[in-house]
Amino acid sequence: MGVTRVYSYTLAGKAGVTPEQVRKDFSEYGIKGNRRGGYLTESLVREIEVIFSRDRESNVVVVGMGNLGQALSRYERFAGRGINIVATFDIDPYKHKSRSDIHVYPMERLEEITERFGVTVAIIAVPEISAQEVCDDLVNLGVRGIVNFSPVLLKVPQYVVVNNVNLSDEIESVILSVRRMKDEQSLFL
Amino acid sequence: MGVTRVYSYTLAGKAGVTPEQVRKDFSEYGIKGNRRGGYLTESLVREIEVIFSRDRESNVVVVGMGNLGQALSRYERFAGRGINIVATFDIDPYKHKSRSDIHVYPMERLEEITERFGVTVAIIAVPEISAQEVCDDLVNLGVRGIVNFSPVLLKVPQYVVVNNVNLSDEIESVILSVRRMKDEQSLFL
Repeated sequence: MGVTRVYSYTLAGKAGVTPEQVRKDFSEYGIKGNRRGGYLTESLVREIEVIFSRDRESNVVVVGMGNLGQALSRYERFAGRGINIVATFDIDPYKHKSRSDIHVYPMERLEEITERFGVTVAIIAVPEISAQEVCDDLVNLGVRGIVNFSPVLLKVPQYVVVNNVNLSDEIESVILSVRRMKDEQSLFL
Repeated sequence: MGVTRVYSYTLAGKAGVTPEQVRKDFSEYGIKGNRRGGYLTESLVREIEVIFSRDRESNVVVVGMGNLGQALSRYERFAGRGINIVATFDIDPYKHKSRSDIHVYPMERLEEITERFGVTVAIIAVPEISAQEVCDDLVNLGVRGIVNFSPVLLKVPQYVVVNNVNLSDEIESVILSVRRMKDEQSLFL
C-alpha cells in the first residue's frame, strides 16, 4: 500500500497483542526498529519471510481426493505461503481423469512422484479406514511431516511430525462455547 | 464391537494419555468405574454424549460456497457429532442452482433461514474481502458463534465466540517443524 514505515503499535493493533510483545518478538530475531522511525516495511517483510522460510517453496502432496482433498488441492492461499501442491493421489480410478486443473495420480505412482519432487510433507485426507496405511507408505517414502485430516491417531516413528486437524472438533468447540454462554445467561434471568 | 466393559488403561492407550488422567477426567464429571470391572461401555458413551451435548443437534449454516465451503457442507463426519448443516449461502447466483444434494441460498434469504432454524453458529468460508461484512450480518441476526476459515481477524462483540481455522497455518507449521528437524540433524553430520 506504499507504506514505507510501520510501527509496533500498528502491528500490535492488527494482531491483537501488545506493542511490547511485537518489539520483543522482533528483537529476538535481531530485527531492529527505532522509536521515532518504526520499522522499514520492505526489509521487515523480507526478514519475516526468511524466519518463516517463506523464501523457500515446499513441495507437498495431497492423498485422498474426496471433497476436502479437492478443496485443499485448489486452495489459493497456499501459493502465497510457499506451499506448493505438486500432486494429488487417490485410489479411485474415476478421479484420475482430469476433471479440472488438478491432476490426480493413482497410489501406485506415489513413490515416483514423491522422489521426483523431493516431497517431505504430505496432507492426508483419506477415509478413516485407510489413513494409517497411507501414513506408513508416506513415511517409508521419506515423508517427515504429515497434516492429518482423518480422525485417526496415526502411529508414526519419533522423527515424523503429525499435525491433526479435526474440523468437527473446531466446529463443536464453538457450539459448546455458545451453549455454555447461553446457560450462564439464563442463570441471571 | 460388542464390548460391554472398557478399562481406563485401554482408553488411555488409544488417546495417548495416562490411565490416571482418564480416571481423573471421568470422576470430575461423576462417571464412576471400578478397578476390577472398568466402565460399562453403554452408559459411559451415553454420559460422554451428554457432557459434549451430543444428545442435542445444533443447526449450523455455511456462508461461502467455494471449494472449501462445498467440502464443509458435504462433510460426512459432522452428522455423528450433532453438527447439522441446515443451509448454505453464496452471492454467486450460479451456485444457487442445485449442482448436487446441497441447496445454496442467496444471501438475501439469510435472515429468514437463520430465524426458521434457530441458527446460533455459522461457518464463514467467504473470500477475505467480504468476511467482516458477512460476520456483521450474522451477528445482527443472532449468531453467537463463528468458525472462521477466512484469513481475517474478525471484529465481533464480546458475547460472540470466534474460532479461527487457518489451513495455511496448519500446513506451514508442519513444514517448519520438518525443516527445523533437518537443520538440527545436519548439525550432527
